[in-house]
Parts: sequence; C-alpha cells; structure tokens
Amino acid sequence: MAKQARAIQTRRQILDAAGLVFDQLGYESATIAEIIAQAGVTKGALYFHFDSKEDVARAVLEEAVTTEGVVPQDSKLQECVDVGMVLAHRVPREPMLSAAIRLSTDLKARALFGTSWTPWIAFMAEQLALAKEQGELLPHTVPEETALVIVAAWTGMEIVTSDLKDGESLQHRVSRLYDHLLPSIAVPGVLARLDTSPDRGTRIWQAHQEQAGRDVETDKGVDLSMSA
Amino acid sequence: MAKQARAIQTRRQILDAAGLVFDQLGYESATIAEIIAQAGVTKGALYFHFDSKEDVARAVLEEAVTTEGVVPQDSKLQECVDVGMVLAHRVPREPMLSAAIRLSTDLKARALFGTSWTPWIAFMAEQLALAKEQGELLPHTVPEETALVIVAAWTGMEIVTSDLKDGESLQHRVSRLYDHLLPSIAVPGVLARLDTSPDRGTRIWQAHQEQAGRDVETDKGVDLSMSA
Repeated sequence: MAKQARAIQTRRQILDAAGLVFDQLGYESATIAEIIAQAGVTKGALYFHFDSKEDVARAVLEEAVTTEGVVPQDSKLQECVDVGMVLAHRVPREPMLSAAIRLSTDLKARALFGTSWTPWIAFMAEQLALAKEQGELLPHTVPEETALVIVAAWTGMEIVTSDLKDGESLQHRVSRLYDHLLPSIAVPGVLARLDTSPDRGTRIWQAHQEQAGRDVETDKGVDLSMSA
Repeated sequence: MAKQARAIQTRRQILDAAGLVFDQLGYESATIAEIIAQAGVTKGALYFHFDSKEDVARAVLEEAVTTEGVVPQDSKLQECVDVGMVLAHRVPREPMLSAAIRLSTDLKARALFGTSWTPWIAFMAEQLALAKEQGELLPHTVPEETALVIVAAWTGMEIVTSDLKDGESLQHRVSRLYDHLLPSIAVPGVLARLDTSPDRGTRIWQAHQEQAGRDVETDKGVDLSMSA
C-alpha cells in the first residue's frame, strides 16, 4: 500500500475508534489513551494525525455527517427523504457518525465546538428550495423553516431511539417521521410517489457500496457537519 | 410560614438552583457546592432534603416535566398541542425544566437514571387514543406511533433551538413543528380549528397563574418525567 493510502487508513481507523469511545463514554470522560487502545495504533501514529482529544473530536464532527450514498433524483423532495433515510441506515453501523450526533447534543462538546446543525439545515433548505422551484411543495412552504423542522425532528428521533433501546430501528422511526411531515409540505401528486419505506436507506447505501467497489474514487457526498 | 411550607420552599429553591447548575455545566461537571452556592441555602439544608448530587438530579428528572397549566379541552388533539406549547413557554423560563431535558440527553446522566421519555410518550399516546375515539384523527393514525414522533420531534426542536441561539423562540419553533405534523393525523374539520399559534402556551400559562393566585392548591398536572 502506498504511504499516503496507509496514512489515510490509519487516520480513519483513529476516527472510527474515537467514535466508539466518545459514543460510549461521552466527550468529557473519553481519553486519548482509550482511543489509542481502541484503534490499535501507536501513540506516535495518533499524534502524527491529531494534536489533542479536542482535535480528534473536531475531526469527528467535521467529517462524519455527509450525504454519501445519496444519488440525484428527479424529485428533490425524494432526495431530502433519502438524506435522512441513508443517515438512519448508517448511524447504527458507523460509530463515528453516531458519536458526531452525540457530540452535537453534548453540553461540554457544544461549548467547545459550537453548533453543528447549521450546514445540515442549510443543505436541506437548498434541496427544498429546488423542490419548490420544481413545483413539488405546497405554496405556503418556507424551505428554511421546513429544513429546520426536518433536521431537528430527525435528531430527536435519533436521541429517543438510542435511548429507548426497544428494538425498533432508527430507519423505521425516521420513515414514520417523514410520513408525518411530508403531507404538510408536498403537493398530492408528488406525495403519492415519494418512497419513505424503512429499507430505503439500506437499498441506497448498498447500491452505493457496489458502485464504490467498482470505482477507484468514491463520492463522499456533501459534508453536512461543521463547516468551520 | 409554617415549618412544612418553608421546607417545601427550600426544596424547590434547591431544585431550581440545581437546574441552573446542571444546565450550565452538565451533570458531570456540576458539584453539590455549586448548587448550595446558587441556591443560597446551607449545606445542612441541602443534605436534609437530598443525599447526593445523583439524588438531586433524580428529583429534577422526576418532578420537572409536567402538564401543569394544561386545561381539558373538547378536542383532545388540542390538548396534545397544548402540552407541547405550554412546555415550550416554560422551558426557557424554568431552569429546572430545561435541566431535565438536558439530563435526558446527557450520556452520563442517561446511564445513571435511564430513559425519561416513556411516561411522556405514554401520556401523549393516551390523549391521542381519546382523540381517535372522538373521531378527531385520520383512520390510519396509530396513537403510540404518533406520540413518539411528537415527543421526539419536540425534543429535537428544544435541542436545536437552545443550540442555535438565533433569537427565534422555542414557542415559534414548536408551533411550526405542530403545523408540520398535524395535517398527517387530524381530520380536516378538526385541523382547521386547532390553535397552534406561537403564543398559545403563554396564554394558557398566564391563565393558569391567575387561577393559581386565587386558589390555595394549584393543580400541578400529570407528571411526565420518570415514573420510576
């Protein structure tokens, strides 16, 4: 493996491990030593890539939440659904992603890193504005307002689901959330054609993985995390 | 003041102070010393009422989230709206309430105290079941599922609002949330009559306060916090 490729892999390995540690212990209780042990890398390797625990957390927040896997659709509203459904598929499978959401709701981490909702809301608002231009949305819909509702409600669903541990998947919950939100914003003809089924995220993600297996470069999608 | 009344007042003073401290520092960083200083009570007074920081936090979680102020309505769906709107009015004004929500999303506190969503979801589900019996809901609506969507989305709104600090009130956001959710569950005739205006919670709460000024005993409503 080329030196650079190996460095990228090690960096990713550290971020995945940090995700697990932050997710289990919270930001404050997590230590660099634990991240090193979890990642199975040397102290030197970690400090080659990151200066501090804060630096690792910042990278998790900056790089975890993406639109990776989501492919352009004729219906921009379907794309908004797809972003939420693919993330719902990925969160329970990617500790780094679930840690990023945990850090976004953690008081201490929020004080250090600021809010991480803005880019995600802005992205959704853009998609909704395009959907509105295409006549997919009811006339009273305000893209910025609806974007905030979707992102906030999605986040609440993730928190409550990870808390209840009642066996129902985040994908089922997010599917139901969209079914509750979309009738107030979509024109009837579009609404009837939207796919909000619970396995939508899994199907999209699997197609993306197959595509990635064939391609040299994978499209990581738009970064929805901290833009700073 | 009677001895008992004074003890109740001191206890409440400690919980309010604890709310402020937990809200500002998070559960882990908060100390008993800080709660005592904030409450302006003696160490003895605090330990008369509570055994430990954990014990104080448990009381905050158990007693903060209530339906206080919400009055029975002909429309049970309106009552569901009112619960969310009154809480949206109270949260920025009651540190204990805002701390309870913060503790419910705090990893460390959650590990110690368990989930606090269940009673809130169960209460909403009951109200929605009554609304359905009365023919207020569309036939496909499942009270338990919709209850979870409302509670989770409300929580997400609170987190994102307290995080964004962009000057828009939680009441405006929760009002908009209901406007996004209700068309998918209410029959048209009921939907048109529901009051989801941003100042709904304030109006209800003020009427309740005036009532409380006249009465000796105030109805604290149903406890929506931890039932354990």
